[in-house]
Amino acid sequence: MSFFDIKNVLIAKKNIYKKLNHTPIIKSFFFSKLLNFNLYLKLESFQKTGSFKVRGVLNKLNYISDIEKNNGVVSLSAGNHAQALAWAASEKGIKSTIIMPYTASKDKIKSTKYYGGNIILTKNNMLEECMRVMKKNNLTLIHPFDDDHVIYGQGTIGLEIFEYLKKIEYVIIGVGGGGLISGISSVLKTLNPKIKIIGVEPINSNVISKSLISNKPEFLSSNITIADGLAAPFAGNITLKYIKKFVDKVVCVKESEIKNSLKQIIKNEKLIVEPAAAATIAALVYDKISIPKKSNVLCLMCGSNIDTEFLKKLL
Amino acid sequence: MSFFDIKNVLIAKKNIYKKLNHTPIIKSFFFSKLLNFNLYLKLESFQKTGSFKVRGVLNKLNYISDIEKNNGVVSLSAGNHAQALAWAASEKGIKSTIIMPYTASKDKIKSTKYYGGNIILTKNNMLEECMRVMKKNNLTLIHPFDDDHVIYGQGTIGLEIFEYLKKIEYVIIGVGGGGLISGISSVLKTLNPKIKIIGVEPINSNVISKSLISNKPEFLSSNITIADGLAAPFAGNITLKYIKKFVDKVVCVKESEIKNSLKQIIKNEKLIVEPAAAATIAALVYDKISIPKKSNVLCLMCGSNIDTEFLKKLL
Repeated sequence: MSFFDIKNVLIAKKNIYKKLNHTPIIKSFFFSKLLNFNLYLKLESFQKTGSFKVRGVLNKLNYISDIEKNNGVVSLSAGNHAQALAWAASEKGIKSTIIMPYTASKDKIKSTKYYGGNIILTKNNMLEECMRVMKKNNLTLIHPFDDDHVIYGQGTIGLEIFEYLKKIEYVIIGVGGGGLISGISSVLKTLNPKIKIIGVEPINSNVISKSLISNKPEFLSSNITIADGLAAPFAGNITLKYIKKFVDKVVCVKESEIKNSLKQIIKNEKLIVEPAAAATIAALVYDKISIPKKSNVLCLMCGSNIDTEFLKKLL
Repeated sequence: MSFFDIKNVLIAKKNIYKKLNHTPIIKSFFFSKLLNFNLYLKLESFQKTGSFKVRGVLNKLNYISDIEKNNGVVSLSAGNHAQALAWAASEKGIKSTIIMPYTASKDKIKSTKYYGGNIILTKNNMLEECMRVMKKNNLTLIHPFDDDHVIYGQGTIGLEIFEYLKKIEYVIIGVGGGGLISGISSVLKTLNPKIKIIGVEPINSNVISKSLISNKPEFLSSNITIADGLAAPFAGNITLKYIKKFVDKVVCVKESEIKNSLKQIIKNEKLIVEPAAAATIAALVYDKISIPKKSNVLCLMCGSNIDTEFLKKLL
């Protein structure tokens, strides 16, 4: 028997759909023509707090005790998990503390505060800082990705994709720490083992590719990328187990490729997404994956939290 | 018996769904909270050519003869109908000529050309110019709104709204010449007469409001508005008949109100829409309509064809 049981994702669905909505899928006229696929976009960019992260967090908060809720939760994030945790914790009356890098986007810091999060900006190792704060204040860690309940929450996206597009053949997903791709791939491979799941990392932040080679969770000393949503400084034990079992391939894209694809999405699809989402399109546009023409391909638009000044420059 | 038969919209659906997709509806977290409604957005902004116009045009082109197809079609438009007609005609191998005002957005002119339209820019009265070109070259007029087959095409949006959101109580729609609101209101009132349909005009371009007062189709000598998608210089006999029968109220919004609401949509919903779409939100934000709190309200995001330079300034 597998370590993964889809029942847990169905339970997550019940847990989170009281507060969240499923997100739409559209066919991209522009990229379908450009790439000669039937190219679909899952618009998780319209999710509450602007990214998929809120699904996993909201599910996870159902599995901590009242004492833990009372003491508060803590995590580390460059921004999307921060906003998601701040919002979801506030919804449940829980105090949240989030360690963010001092280089984090101003817009993401502002939103996290708006949702009620207590932010600690750090120049130090984020994970170490998070552990220090957690122990000092007796907080409960809500891991950004390496947690089964978080993965089940992200897996609800897999249910939505399959429900809407049973004919889908390839699903392309951005990879940071791997929580999103773990959730979606485990669900889709369970529902139809023929669906191919491709992960995409920025070449500047490729901790999963490295971990797959060494066969253990690696750490990165540096991982600067415009796709901050994919900038995980380390891989997880749990996500690595999921990825090895359910993901067909992980490919890498360059910064310039992400940026060019992001421009194309905004200008031609009239869709505001963040660079992490554009990485999936970049993998197709810059031929990192061999997919037969006319295939039914879905790219996950994982979030919309793009810095306003950066967006202006792209237009 | 009514002059309207929903069967014609079901036929239009069959005619157009070979080439077009239905568009998604999302719940707006931001505006639901701000306005205390359950506020939904119909994202027709993701429609092919960037607006709803293509539905009506594509349906209409099924009802002209082979000789008419061979001679070519003509119309007048500030931009959205121009792009829609250019694309739909090209898809069917028909030559299209479109009279556009010399003040039309550069982006819209560029797109119309890209889709294969032959553009004539004019400083003169657009309707007179269109009639002149039509007669001279023996072309067939594809009216931007005052045509039953065009209205049936736009009505397919009504089918999609009802299918997705049976509980909807109020539908808010931007009004130019009235083709869109005629199509949607006739369908929704037929399916559920309790649904309230509210039209929104820019106060600077309020030809339908004026026509409803005088009870005949009026002309405007001037109608400059940032919501160029709603800038019809005249009302139609057919649309006026629909509006009088199926629309509950038409309200007006100011330019500043449209602009402020547009900013809010782009920044908070991460949605690129054109000012014509924002007029619907403005009518709610600036209290032009009395709607009970907690109501299920849908605003139609009719298009995404916003000028890039204007978009940059809004960010």
